[in-house]
Amino acid sequence: MKTGPLALTLGDPAGVGPEIVVKAWNELRAGGPAFMAVGDFQSLASASVAGASILRRVHAPEDALRVFPDALPVLDLPMRSPVVAGQPSPAYAPAVIQWIETAVGLALRGDVSGVVTAPIAKAPLYEAGFKFPGHTEFLGELTAAANYDGARGPIMMLTARDLRVTLVTVHAPIAKVPSLLSVEKIVNAGLVTAQSLRRDFGLLAPRVAVAGLNPHAGESGGIGREEIELVEPAIRALRNLGVDATGPFPADSLFPETMRSRYDAAVCLYHDQALIPVKMLDFWGGVNVTLGLPIVRTSPDHGTAFDIAGRGLARADSLVQAVRLADQIARRRGG
Amino acid sequence: MKTGPLALTLGDPAGVGPEIVVKAWNELRAGGPAFMAVGDFQSLASASVAGASILRRVHAPEDALRVFPDALPVLDLPMRSPVVAGQPSPAYAPAVIQWIETAVGLALRGDVSGVVTAPIAKAPLYEAGFKFPGHTEFLGELTAAANYDGARGPIMMLTARDLRVTLVTVHAPIAKVPSLLSVEKIVNAGLVTAQSLRRDFGLLAPRVAVAGLNPHAGESGGIGREEIELVEPAIRALRNLGVDATGPFPADSLFPETMRSRYDAAVCLYHDQALIPVKMLDFWGGVNVTLGLPIVRTSPDHGTAFDIAGRGLARADSLVQAVRLADQIARRRGG
Repeated sequence: MKTGPLALTLGDPAGVGPEIVVKAWNELRAGGPAFMAVGDFQSLASASVAGASILRRVHAPEDALRVFPDALPVLDLPMRSPVVAGQPSPAYAPAVIQWIETAVGLALRGDVSGVVTAPIAKAPLYEAGFKFPGHTEFLGELTAAANYDGARGPIMMLTARDLRVTLVTVHAPIAKVPSLLSVEKIVNAGLVTAQSLRRDFGLLAPRVAVAGLNPHAGESGGIGREEIELVEPAIRALRNLGVDATGPFPADSLFPETMRSRYDAAVCLYHDQALIPVKMLDFWGGVNVTLGLPIVRTSPDHGTAFDIAGRGLARADSLVQAVRLADQIARRRGG
Repeated sequence: MKTGPLALTLGDPAGVGPEIVVKAWNELRAGGPAFMAVGDFQSLASASVAGASILRRVHAPEDALRVFPDALPVLDLPMRSPVVAGQPSPAYAPAVIQWIETAVGLALRGDVSGVVTAPIAKAPLYEAGFKFPGHTEFLGELTAAANYDGARGPIMMLTARDLRVTLVTVHAPIAKVPSLLSVEKIVNAGLVTAQSLRRDFGLLAPRVAVAGLNPHAGESGGIGREEIELVEPAIRALRNLGVDATGPFPADSLFPETMRSRYDAAVCLYHDQALIPVKMLDFWGGVNVTLGLPIVRTSPDHGTAFDIAGRGLARADSLVQAVRLADQIARRRGG
């Protein structure tokens, strides 16, 4: 039952979320994919030059499909306090969290085909008591009880042009990365990646390249031993599990164009190893996909951009790509 | 007295060095810059389709300038044992080291305008008792006693298209990078970088951007404190020294095209932070420049490539760029 619209959560209402949701609707209304905004009607009206006239409240996802060509369908879950664009506040946190929980619930019941999340800011959520490092881990928790036939995530994937990368560690300080890595985590990331390339991206024989941690991938142990002690055993284990895994590759040799054609996704061990190439290849249009969840979930790979919120300057490129990719994945999973 | 030729050391004679030196001469013989190979005549003859017929032994740098349009001038310092391409051996180490020492000596005396070094392999040099992590540190030692008016290196710079990066740590395991960083080292790298941009690259008001260490540059201390404790104080110190230094920037935001136009060099804290963007921008033509030395020194930014040595496949793009850049820097310093 993947024929519903996508649910698009508004993210932090003081960030660029409301504005880029309206812009994404403008860009996609004619051809789809159709989505339903889940959030505060008033924030969306304020973020649109046309005001409330282009918005329509809906109460069920099936209405959203019908409404979408004419108006941005909104499942209105209003804020309790007024929002000032560009000024984050922990007071918004309960609503921000409710929107995510609502969208995930709809997806778990099959009423929407997937969830696309506009950016949240971590600091105000933490101040309000939010316990998760970010969206991705929160979604893992919200969907933990649901059945899923495959290796379990959440694993973060980022896509940019012809590059897909997945991450073993995400928002960890560099000093902690080596101790956070383990054979098990690398194997899990590789397995979730390979299964998702098949299931979500339609690749019959996916190839997974695994990055090393150290310069020159450790140069046979001369510059660090994590490649020998963690990455190589993980690659052997993945191959035993039937995954076409190769590496460890020196990270600086993995992302030039000639190399990118040799794999379908690169498993990276830390944030900037993955994000430097992604942002270089597509600064505006990169998409974040959460792999290994019972629901489909994508998001833009940028933040709330409070500095430009409410000024009409934000670009919706990444959100539009996120909507398109969520739709493609939902069709593959549902078909 | 920077009017001499450049000295080009052969590097590991079993690697691609001899082959790319011959190819670089073919490409540059008509227009220069002129150079003199410093190494084993026989290895160069074996690496050339034309054999020894295109080579000419010279005994002094001034002869090289005259010879260069007609033949590759070689300061012949022969090997004691025959060389097999693709098969590294510690037996070559004394000659490899002698070539570097000779070229540096010529440069310190002003008989050559600078030194360009073809790649060496570390493992066979270490086996033979070589005590330095690499070329760069060895050159620092060989030139330590010479006068130099400015902040002292060696600091490694890599150039690729419109990007220049310098490194605070180079061949360090990721686990050791945080403890190797200090305010002093970051300040020194930034100062050497800024002075070199002026002296060697001719920029009147150089702008230096400094990368953070952690994801999102630590997100105000939420993801690591090195930015607050080391990088920010270093940037303040640099600004007090008159350097136009900015940052710390999240590494993933520093290398997209729009950002690269905002600085003249990026100071990076570890190897792959610098090398991922360099290799993505110019996989074949990147150049390594050693800053803060009394002599001019550049090299290609690739290795010995033993796997393709002796087969005529190696590309000389990076070496040709290295020769050109060494010549430009020598002219600026000498002029």
